[in-house]
Amino acid sequence: MLCLTEPTDPAWIEGALADLDAVLVDHGHCEMKAASNALALAARHPDDVVLVRALTDLAREEIDHFQRVLDFAEKRGLSLGTPAVDAYAAELRRAAHDELRAVPPLVQRLLVGALIEARSCERFKILVTAMAERNVEPELVAFYDELFECEARHFRTYFDLAVRAAGGDEPVVRRALGALSRREGAIVRALAGGDERATVHG
Amino acid sequence: MLCLTEPTDPAWIEGALADLDAVLVDHGHCEMKAASNALALAARHPDDVVLVRALTDLAREEIDHFQRVLDFAEKRGLSLGTPAVDAYAAELRRAAHDELRAVPPLVQRLLVGALIEARSCERFKILVTAMAERNVEPELVAFYDELFECEARHFRTYFDLAVRAAGGDEPVVRRALGALSRREGAIVRALAGGDERATVHG
Repeated sequence: MLCLTEPTDPAWIEGALADLDAVLVDHGHCEMKAASNALALAARHPDDVVLVRALTDLAREEIDHFQRVLDFAEKRGLSLGTPAVDAYAAELRRAAHDELRAVPPLVQRLLVGALIEARSCERFKILVTAMAERNVEPELVAFYDELFECEARHFRTYFDLAVRAAGGDEPVVRRALGALSRREGAIVRALAGGDERATVHG
Repeated sequence: MLCLTEPTDPAWIEGALADLDAVLVDHGHCEMKAASNALALAARHPDDVVLVRALTDLAREEIDHFQRVLDFAEKRGLSLGTPAVDAYAAELRRAAHDELRAVPPLVQRLLVGALIEARSCERFKILVTAMAERNVEPELVAFYDELFECEARHFRTYFDLAVRAAGGDEPVVRRALGALSRREGAIVRALAGGDERATVHG
Protein backbone atom coordinates (compact mmCIF):
# COMPACT_ATOMS: atom_id res chain seq x y z
CA MET A 1 0.00 0.00 0.00
CA LEU A 2 1.65 3.21 -1.24
CA CYS A 3 5.11 3.34 0.34
CA LEU A 4 4.47 1.40 3.56
CA THR A 5 6.98 -1.31 4.44
CA GLU A 6 5.03 -2.84 7.32
CA PRO A 7 1.40 -3.85 6.86
CA THR A 8 -0.92 -3.22 9.79
CA ASP A 9 -1.06 -6.14 12.24
CA PRO A 10 -4.17 -8.21 11.31
CA ALA A 11 -5.19 -8.01 14.99
CA TRP A 12 -5.69 -4.26 14.63
CA ILE A 13 -8.96 -4.54 12.74
CA GLU A 14 -10.54 -6.63 15.51
CA GLY A 15 -9.77 -3.94 18.07
CA ALA A 16 -11.02 -1.28 15.70
CA LEU A 17 -14.29 -3.08 14.89
CA ALA A 18 -14.87 -3.69 18.59
CA ASP A 19 -14.66 0.04 19.26
CA LEU A 20 -15.66 2.05 16.19
CA ASP A 21 -16.49 4.95 18.50
CA ALA A 22 -12.88 5.13 19.65
CA VAL A 23 -11.67 5.01 16.03
CA LEU A 24 -13.99 7.89 15.18
CA VAL A 25 -12.84 10.04 18.11
CA ASP A 26 -9.18 9.37 17.31
CA HIS A 27 -9.86 10.12 13.66
CA GLY A 28 -11.40 13.49 14.59
CA HIS A 29 -8.23 14.45 16.43
CA CYS A 30 -6.12 13.25 13.48
CA GLU A 31 -7.98 15.50 11.04
CA MET A 32 -7.62 18.49 13.34
CA LYS A 33 -3.89 17.87 13.78
CA ALA A 34 -3.45 17.35 10.03
CA ALA A 35 -5.15 20.70 9.34
CA SER A 36 -3.08 22.54 11.96
CA ASN A 37 0.18 20.98 10.78
CA ALA A 38 -0.48 21.78 7.12
CA LEU A 39 -1.31 25.37 8.04
CA ALA A 40 1.75 25.72 10.27
CA LEU A 41 4.01 24.36 7.53
CA ALA A 42 2.47 26.78 5.00
CA ALA A 43 2.94 29.70 7.39
CA ARG A 44 6.61 28.77 7.82
CA HIS A 45 7.25 29.07 4.06
CA PRO A 46 5.18 32.11 3.02
CA ASP A 47 7.23 32.81 -0.12
CA ASP A 48 6.81 29.38 -1.66
CA VAL A 49 3.47 29.98 -3.34
CA VAL A 50 3.11 26.49 -4.81
CA LEU A 51 3.72 24.90 -1.41
CA VAL A 52 1.49 27.40 0.39
CA ARG A 53 -1.39 26.87 -2.01
CA ALA A 54 -1.16 23.07 -1.82
CA LEU A 55 -0.91 23.02 1.97
CA THR A 56 -3.73 25.52 2.54
CA ASP A 57 -5.94 23.49 0.16
CA LEU A 58 -5.06 20.46 2.20
CA ALA A 59 -5.78 22.22 5.50
CA ARG A 60 -9.20 23.26 4.26
CA GLU A 61 -10.00 19.73 3.21
CA GLU A 62 -8.86 18.34 6.59
CA ILE A 63 -11.15 20.88 8.31
CA ASP A 64 -14.04 19.61 6.17
CA HIS A 65 -13.24 16.04 7.15
CA PHE A 66 -12.95 17.04 10.78
CA GLN A 67 -16.41 18.59 10.66
CA ARG A 68 -17.85 15.47 9.07
CA VAL A 69 -16.28 13.31 11.80
CA LEU A 70 -17.89 15.70 14.27
CA ASP A 71 -21.29 15.07 12.63
CA PHE A 72 -20.84 11.31 13.02
CA ALA A 73 -19.61 11.71 16.59
CA GLU A 74 -22.56 13.92 17.50
CA LYS A 75 -25.08 11.47 16.04
CA ARG A 76 -23.50 8.75 18.19
CA GLY A 77 -23.56 10.96 21.30
CA LEU A 78 -19.76 11.00 21.47
CA SER A 79 -17.62 13.88 22.60
CA LEU A 80 -14.08 14.12 21.29
CA GLY A 81 -12.36 14.78 24.60
CA THR A 82 -8.75 15.82 24.90
CA PRO A 83 -6.58 13.87 22.46
CA ALA A 84 -4.21 11.28 23.88
CA VAL A 85 -0.51 11.96 23.43
CA ASP A 86 0.24 11.24 19.79
CA ALA A 87 3.22 8.87 20.21
CA TYR A 88 3.05 7.79 16.57
CA ALA A 89 3.49 11.29 15.12
CA ALA A 90 6.04 12.32 17.75
CA GLU A 91 8.21 9.25 17.09
CA LEU A 92 7.86 9.61 13.35
CA ARG A 93 9.06 13.22 13.55
CA ARG A 94 12.00 12.16 15.71
CA ALA A 95 12.83 9.37 13.27
CA ALA A 96 12.74 11.80 10.32
CA HIS A 97 15.10 14.11 12.16
CA ASP A 98 17.54 11.24 12.95
CA GLU A 99 17.29 9.34 9.72
CA LEU A 100 16.93 11.98 7.01
CA ARG A 101 19.90 14.25 7.66
CA ALA A 102 20.74 14.12 3.95
CA VAL A 103 17.61 16.08 2.99
CA PRO A 104 16.51 19.59 4.11
CA PRO A 105 14.16 19.96 7.10
CA LEU A 106 11.25 20.92 4.82
CA VAL A 107 11.65 17.65 2.88
CA GLN A 108 11.75 15.76 6.18
CA ARG A 109 8.51 17.39 7.33
CA LEU A 110 6.79 16.75 4.03
CA LEU A 111 7.77 13.08 4.13
CA VAL A 112 6.42 12.77 7.68
CA GLY A 113 3.16 14.17 6.29
CA ALA A 114 3.28 11.71 3.39
CA LEU A 115 3.73 8.72 5.69
CA ILE A 116 0.96 9.76 8.07
CA GLU A 117 -1.38 10.04 5.09
CA ALA A 118 -0.20 6.68 3.73
CA ARG A 119 -0.87 4.91 7.04
CA SER A 120 -4.33 6.54 7.34
CA CYS A 121 -5.05 5.44 3.81
CA GLU A 122 -4.08 1.82 4.56
CA ARG A 123 -6.15 1.76 7.76
CA PHE A 124 -9.25 3.20 6.09
CA LYS A 125 -8.97 0.56 3.38
CA ILE A 126 -8.76 -2.19 6.01
CA LEU A 127 -11.75 -0.69 7.82
CA VAL A 128 -13.82 -0.40 4.65
CA THR A 129 -13.12 -3.97 3.60
CA ALA A 130 -13.84 -5.48 7.03
CA MET A 131 -16.92 -3.36 7.71
CA ALA A 132 -18.38 -4.02 4.26
CA GLU A 133 -17.83 -7.78 4.66
CA ARG A 134 -19.67 -7.76 7.97
CA ASN A 135 -22.26 -5.38 6.63
CA VAL A 136 -21.93 -2.90 9.49
CA GLU A 137 -22.62 0.85 9.41
CA PRO A 138 -22.87 1.48 5.66
CA GLU A 139 -22.87 5.27 6.13
CA LEU A 140 -19.55 5.12 7.98
CA VAL A 141 -18.17 2.67 5.37
CA ALA A 142 -19.01 5.15 2.59
CA PHE A 143 -17.27 7.92 4.52
CA TYR A 144 -14.14 5.85 5.13
CA ASP A 145 -14.12 4.76 1.51
CA GLU A 146 -14.13 8.38 0.39
CA LEU A 147 -11.39 9.20 2.91
CA PHE A 148 -9.26 6.31 1.70
CA GLU A 149 -9.10 8.02 -1.68
CA CYS A 150 -8.43 11.44 -0.15
CA GLU A 151 -5.58 10.12 1.97
CA ALA A 152 -3.99 8.51 -1.10
CA ARG A 153 -4.22 11.85 -2.87
CA HIS A 154 -2.78 13.67 0.15
CA PHE A 155 0.12 11.21 0.25
CA ARG A 156 0.84 12.10 -3.36
CA THR A 157 0.60 15.83 -2.65
CA TYR A 158 3.13 15.56 0.19
CA PHE A 159 5.41 13.35 -1.88
CA ASP A 160 5.32 15.69 -4.90
CA LEU A 161 5.96 18.70 -2.66
CA ALA A 162 8.92 16.85 -1.12
CA VAL A 163 10.40 16.16 -4.56
CA ARG A 164 9.92 19.81 -5.44
CA ALA A 165 11.50 20.92 -2.15
CA ALA A 166 14.46 18.64 -2.95
CA GLY A 167 15.03 20.51 -6.21
CA GLY A 168 13.31 17.81 -8.26
CA ASP A 169 15.67 15.01 -7.19
CA GLU A 170 13.08 12.23 -7.04
CA PRO A 171 15.57 9.35 -6.45
CA VAL A 172 16.90 11.08 -3.33
CA VAL A 173 13.37 11.63 -2.03
CA ARG A 174 12.39 8.03 -2.80
CA ARG A 175 15.40 6.79 -0.83
CA ALA A 176 14.55 9.09 2.08
CA LEU A 177 10.93 7.97 2.01
CA GLY A 178 12.04 4.33 1.98
CA ALA A 179 14.29 4.87 4.99
CA LEU A 180 11.59 6.74 6.91
CA SER A 181 9.03 4.12 5.96
CA ARG A 182 11.16 1.38 7.54
CA ARG A 183 11.30 3.42 10.74
CA GLU A 184 7.53 4.05 10.52
CA GLY A 185 6.98 0.30 10.24
CA ALA A 186 9.00 -0.26 13.41
CA ILE A 187 7.03 2.46 15.22
CA VAL A 188 3.69 0.95 14.21
CA ARG A 189 4.88 -2.54 15.22
CA ALA A 190 6.02 -1.28 18.62
CA LEU A 191 2.78 0.64 19.23
CA ALA A 192 0.70 -2.41 18.26
CA GLY A 193 1.94 -4.05 21.47
CA GLY A 194 0.37 -1.28 23.58
CA ASP A 195 -3.16 -0.71 24.87
CA GLU A 196 -4.32 1.89 22.40
CA ARG A 197 -5.44 -0.29 19.51
CA ALA A 198 -8.54 1.42 18.18
CA THR A 199 -6.70 4.38 16.68
CA VAL A 200 -5.95 5.44 13.13
CA HIS A 201 -2.17 5.29 13.48
CA GLY A 202 -1.22 3.67 16.77
CA MET B 1 -17.83 51.08 14.22
CA LEU B 2 -18.92 47.94 16.08
CA CYS B 3 -17.38 48.13 19.54
CA LEU B 4 -14.31 50.26 18.81
CA THR B 5 -13.67 53.19 21.13
CA GLU B 6 -10.85 54.77 19.11
CA PRO B 7 -11.34 55.50 15.42
CA THR B 8 -8.34 54.93 13.18
CA ASP B 9 -6.11 58.00 12.85
CA PRO B 10 -7.13 59.76 9.59
CA ALA B 11 -3.43 59.76 8.63
CA TRP B 12 -3.52 55.95 8.36
CA ILE B 13 -5.39 55.91 5.07
CA GLU B 14 -2.75 58.06 3.38
CA GLY B 15 -0.02 55.61 4.36
CA ALA B 16 -2.18 52.72 3.25
CA LEU B 17 -3.07 54.26 -0.13
CA ALA B 18 0.58 55.07 -0.69
CA ASP B 19 1.51 51.42 -0.22
CA LEU B 20 -1.40 49.14 -1.11
CA ASP B 21 1.12 46.36 -1.72
CA ALA B 22 2.24 46.48 1.91
CA VAL B 23 -1.40 46.44 3.06
CA LEU B 24 -2.02 43.37 0.94
CA VAL B 25 1.03 41.51 2.26
CA ASP B 26 0.14 42.35 5.86
CA HIS B 27 -3.44 41.31 5.19
CA GLY B 28 -2.26 37.92 3.91
CA HIS B 29 -0.40 37.29 7.15
CA CYS B 30 -3.45 38.44 9.14
CA GLU B 31 -5.70 35.90 7.41
CA MET B 32 -3.21 33.10 8.00
CA LYS B 33 -2.87 34.00 11.69
CA ALA B 34 -6.65 34.29 12.04
CA ALA B 35 -7.09 30.79 10.58
CA SER B 36 -4.37 29.29 12.80
CA ASN B 37 -5.70 30.97 15.92
CA ALA B 38 -9.29 29.89 15.29
CA LEU B 39 -8.12 26.32 14.72
CA ALA B 40 -5.91 26.33 17.82
CA LEU B 41 -8.77 27.64 19.96
CA ALA B 42 -11.11 24.97 18.56
CA ALA B 43 -8.53 22.25 19.26
CA ARG B 44 -8.21 23.43 22.86
CA HIS B 45 -11.96 22.95 23.48
CA PRO B 46 -12.76 19.71 21.62
CA ASP B 47 -15.87 18.94 23.67
CA ASP B 48 -17.63 22.21 23.00
CA VAL B 49 -19.22 21.27 19.68
CA VAL B 50 -20.91 24.63 19.06
CA LEU B 51 -17.64 26.46 19.61
CA VAL B 52 -15.65 23.95 17.56
CA ARG B 53 -18.04 24.13 14.63
CA ALA B 54 -18.11 27.94 14.62
CA LEU B 55 -14.33 28.26 14.90
CA THR B 56 -13.55 25.63 12.25
CA ASP B 57 -16.05 27.33 9.89
CA LEU B 58 -14.22 30.55 10.59
CA ALA B 59 -10.80 28.98 10.02
CA ARG B 60 -11.93 27.62 6.67
CA GLU B 61 -13.20 31.02 5.61
CA GLU B 62 -9.94 32.69 6.69
CA ILE B 63 -8.02 30.15 4.59
CA ASP B 64 -10.20 31.07 1.60
CA HIS B 65 -9.48 34.75 2.16
CA PHE B 66 -5.79 34.01 2.56
CA GLN B 67 -5.76 32.23 -0.79
CA ARG B 68 -7.54 35.13 -2.45
CA VAL B 69 -4.99 37.56 -1.00
CA LEU B 70 -2.33 35.25 -2.43
CA ASP B 71 -3.96 35.55 -5.87
CA PHE B 72 -3.84 39.34 -5.69
CA ALA B 73 -0.26 39.27 -4.39
CA GLU B 74 0.85 36.96 -7.18
CA LYS B 75 -0.75 39.11 -9.88
CA ARG B 76 1.17 42.08 -8.48
CA GLY B 77 4.43 40.12 -8.35
CA LEU B 78 4.56 40.34 -4.55
CA SER B 79 5.84 37.68 -2.21
CA LEU B 80 4.50 37.58 1.33
CA GLY B 81 7.82 37.28 3.11
CA THR B 82 8.15 36.50 6.79
CA PRO B 83 5.54 38.42 8.80
CA ALA B 84 6.77 41.25 11.00
CA VAL B 85 6.31 40.79 14.74
CA ASP B 86 2.60 41.30 15.42
CA ALA B 87 2.84 43.88 18.20
CA TYR B 88 -0.86 44.70 17.94
CA ALA B 89 -2.08 41.14 18.61
CA ALA B 90 0.58 40.48 21.25
CA GLU B 91 -0.31 43.63 23.19
CA LEU B 92 -4.02 43.00 22.84
CA ARG B 93 -3.60 39.49 24.31
CA ARG B 94 -1.55 40.89 27.17
CA ALA B 95 -4.20 43.57 27.77
CA ALA B 96 -6.96 40.93 27.83
CA HIS B 97 -5.00 38.92 30.36
CA ASP B 98 -4.45 41.99 32.60
CA GLU B 99 -7.80 43.65 32.18
CA LEU B 100 -10.32 40.83 31.99
CA ARG B 101 -9.56 38.80 35.11
CA ALA B 102 -13.28 38.72 35.90
CA VAL B 103 -14.06 36.49 32.91
CA PRO B 104 -12.69 33.00 32.07
CA PRO B 105 -9.65 32.70 29.75
CA LEU B 106 -11.82 31.37 26.92
CA VAL B 107 -13.97 34.53 27.06
CA GLN B 108 -10.80 36.64 27.08
CA ARG B 109 -9.51 34.87 23.98
CA LEU B 110 -12.81 35.18 22.15
CA LEU B 111 -12.98 38.90 22.90
CA VAL B 112 -9.44 39.35 21.56
CA GLY B 113 -10.69 37.64 18.39
CA ALA B 114 -13.76 39.90 18.32
CA LEU B 115 -11.68 43.06 18.58
CA ILE B 116 -9.18 42.00 15.92
CA GLU B 117 -12.11 41.37 13.57
CA ALA B 118 -13.71 44.69 14.51
CA ARG B 119 -10.52 46.63 13.76
CA SER B 120 -10.07 44.81 10.42
CA CYS B 121 -13.65 45.62 9.59
CA GLU B 122 -13.17 49.32 10.32
CA ARG B 123 -9.95 49.46 8.29
CA PHE B 124 -11.49 47.71 5.27
CA LYS B 125 -14.36 50.18 5.33
CA ILE B 126 -11.93 53.10 5.38
CA LEU B 127 -9.98 51.53 2.51
CA VAL B 128 -13.10 50.87 0.44
CA THR B 129 -14.40 54.42 0.88
CA ALA B 130 -11.09 56.09 0.10
CA MET B 131 -10.20 53.81 -2.82
CA ALA B 132 -13.67 54.13 -4.36
CA GLU B 133 -13.55 57.94 -4.06
CA ARG B 134 -10.22 58.05 -5.85
CA ASN B 135 -11.35 55.43 -8.30
CA VAL B 136 -8.32 53.17 -7.78
CA GLU B 137 -8.11 49.38 -8.21
CA PRO B 138 -11.82 48.48 -8.45
CA GLU B 139 -11.07 44.74 -8.17
CA LEU B 140 -9.30 45.24 -4.85
CA VAL B 141 -12.09 47.58 -3.68
CA ALA B 142 -14.68 44.88 -4.38
CA PHE B 143 -12.60 42.36 -2.41
CA TYR B 144 -12.17 44.68 0.57
CA ASP B 145 -15.87 45.52 0.47
CA GLU B 146 -16.72 41.83 0.70
CA LEU B 147 -14.20 41.38 3.51
CA PHE B 148 -15.63 44.32 5.42
CA GLU B 149 -18.90 42.39 5.66
CA CYS B 150 -17.15 39.13 6.58
CA GLU B 151 -15.16 40.77 9.37
CA ALA B 152 -18.35 42.29 10.79
CA ARG B 153 -19.89 38.81 10.79
CA HIS B 154 -16.76 37.31 12.39
CA PHE B 155 -16.87 39.96 15.10
CA ARG B 156 -20.43 38.90 15.84
CA THR B 157 -19.45 35.20 15.87
CA TYR B 158 -16.68 35.83 18.40
CA PHE B 159 -18.92 38.04 20.51
CA ASP B 160 -21.77 35.51 20.55
CA LEU B 161 -19.34 32.70 21.43
CA ALA B 162 -17.97 34.84 24.25
CA VAL B 163 -21.47 35.41 25.66
CA ARG B 164 -22.11 31.67 25.43
CA ALA B 165 -18.76 30.89 27.11
CA ALA B 166 -19.75 33.30 29.89
CA GLY B 167 -22.88 31.27 30.57
CA GLY B 168 -25.09 33.67 28.62
CA ASP B 169 -24.26 36.69 30.79
CA GLU B 170 -24.26 39.30 28.03
CA PRO B 171 -23.91 42.38 30.31
CA VAL B 172 -20.68 40.95 31.79
CA VAL B 173 -19.30 40.27 28.32
CA ARG B 174 -20.29 43.74 27.08
CA ARG B 175 -18.48 45.31 30.01
CA ALA B 176 -15.39 43.16 29.37
CA LEU B 177 -15.48 44.04 25.67
CA GLY B 178 -15.78 47.73 26.55
CA ALA B 179 -12.77 47.53 28.86
CA LEU B 180 -10.69 45.65 26.30
CA SER B 181 -11.80 48.00 23.55
CA ARG B 182 -10.44 50.99 25.51
CA ARG B 183 -7.11 49.18 25.82
CA GLU B 184 -7.23 48.30 22.11
CA GLY B 185 -7.76 51.98 21.30
CA ALA B 186 -4.67 52.90 23.31
CA ILE B 187 -2.64 50.17 21.54
CA VAL B 188 -3.70 51.39 18.09
CA ARG B 189 -2.96 54.99 19.05
CA ALA B 190 0.51 54.06 20.31
CA LEU B 191 1.30 51.98 17.21
CA ALA B 192 0.13 54.82 14.92
CA GLY B 193 3.19 56.75 16.06
CA GLY B 194 5.53 54.05 14.72
CA ASP B 195 6.91 53.34 11.26
CA GLU B 196 4.66 50.51 10.21
CA ARG B 197 1.65 52.39 8.92
CA ALA B 198 0.45 50.38 5.94
CA THR B 199 -0.87 47.44 7.97
CA VAL B 200 -4.36 46.20 8.77
CA HIS B 201 -4.05 46.61 12.54
CA GLY B 202 -0.90 48.55 13.42
